[in-house]
Amino acid sequence: MPEKKEYPKPAVTVDIVIFSIIDKKLKVLLVRRGLEPFKNMWALPGGFVKMEESLEEAAKRELHEETGAQDIYLEQLYTFGQPDRDPRDRVITVTYMALTNSDKIKLHADTDVSEVKWFSIDEIPKLAFDHPKILEYALKRLRWKFEYTSVAFSMLSEKFTMSDIQSIYEIVFHKKFDKRNFNKKIRSLNILNKESIKKDVSYRPPKLYSLKKNIPEVIEIIKLSNS
Amino acid sequence: MPEKKEYPKPAVTVDIVIFSIIDKKLKVLLVRRGLEPFKNMWALPGGFVKMEESLEEAAKRELHEETGAQDIYLEQLYTFGQPDRDPRDRVITVTYMALTNSDKIKLHADTDVSEVKWFSIDEIPKLAFDHPKILEYALKRLRWKFEYTSVAFSMLSEKFTMSDIQSIYEIVFHKKFDKRNFNKKIRSLNILNKESIKKDVSYRPPKLYSLKKNIPEVIEIIKLSNS
Repeated sequence: MPEKKEYPKPAVTVDIVIFSIIDKKLKVLLVRRGLEPFKNMWALPGGFVKMEESLEEAAKRELHEETGAQDIYLEQLYTFGQPDRDPRDRVITVTYMALTNSDKIKLHADTDVSEVKWFSIDEIPKLAFDHPKILEYALKRLRWKFEYTSVAFSMLSEKFTMSDIQSIYEIVFHKKFDKRNFNKKIRSLNILNKESIKKDVSYRPPKLYSLKKNIPEVIEIIKLSNS
Repeated sequence: MPEKKEYPKPAVTVDIVIFSIIDKKLKVLLVRRGLEPFKNMWALPGGFVKMEESLEEAAKRELHEETGAQDIYLEQLYTFGQPDRDPRDRVITVTYMALTNSDKIKLHADTDVSEVKWFSIDEIPKLAFDHPKILEYALKRLRWKFEYTSVAFSMLSEKFTMSDIQSIYEIVFHKKFDKRNFNKKIRSLNILNKESIKKDVSYRPPKLYSLKKNIPEVIEIIKLSNS
């Protein structure tokens, strides 16, 4: 028999930062809280972990319940546990990040939230709890992943043009890149397949690409840290 | 008043993976459990988070209580929360990783553990809970950090020779590197200062180096992922 011993029990939540590129802007999905504390304030979607579900299952369930989003790849970010981060109780939160093509999400506010909406990261309202810190952490991770992995391509359609790629890098880094150098760098990585394009148009159509399979987990797409 | 609402409460622990290079081997610090469950089995040092301490404070306290280790830089790794990972109860664990020069640690087993010892990662005993999975995750992160950050240098003395660096890379990756190419690669990064060396010895002393300040957070030290 396991020995009985007393130990303290905090509550545990999951909170999810979902990014998407919409109307040429980097946006994050927020919910308006329907319950205290911070009732009516905007917050990241999330909620308490149930005893019988894993952390990732909890994140997927909360995301679906609060926003309607489904079938989204989630990546664990960081666990925040300052003793005073929630006025109700000791609440530790395990945070997740997701990138999505916003077409995949049919928004509908549901349990515990009164509204759900995409916000440009330049126009984030005052957020509940320590959610500003969580969002800042997620943004840092997102930019890091854009530099060092091919994750950016998951925000594009399966076939894309070189200017589609350049565009999302410019949006995420808030910065213009020289077209020729950018194209040259991306091509040098040898991670793209050329796709056939329809020839029956009168103008010259842009070249289409798709991402190769089995590219390395870490690959320096573009170097910005030193610039 | 915050609205009262019932929510489930799991227990939360921290577990710590500390790596060091000892006798030319990569080692991890383990404790022998003094209590059930898994009494007498080896495990990562760790324990329950107290209500008034942050997660990092909990990790530092447990590390000190169980092993005597103090003043060690910790980095959060990942939070593991499968519902069945602890036979006692629903226990979610927030894991941390540390790298240290083993000279800094004076080992002494204390609360809840009967023994504390460095194990070579080639000779890890059967571990309690899901600790094999946590250790595997930590090893992956360690190797990744050796490839893409200057963290390896924190395991060396302040002044070191080029063969000291090569040696810890060979130990961590279980692989021999060509001396000339390795030196050339490290030198090309421009992250080292040359240190003066004593000339009053009859043999030719090896060149000494130290790590420059303010080098980028992410820097490709050596490329292994594709090889």
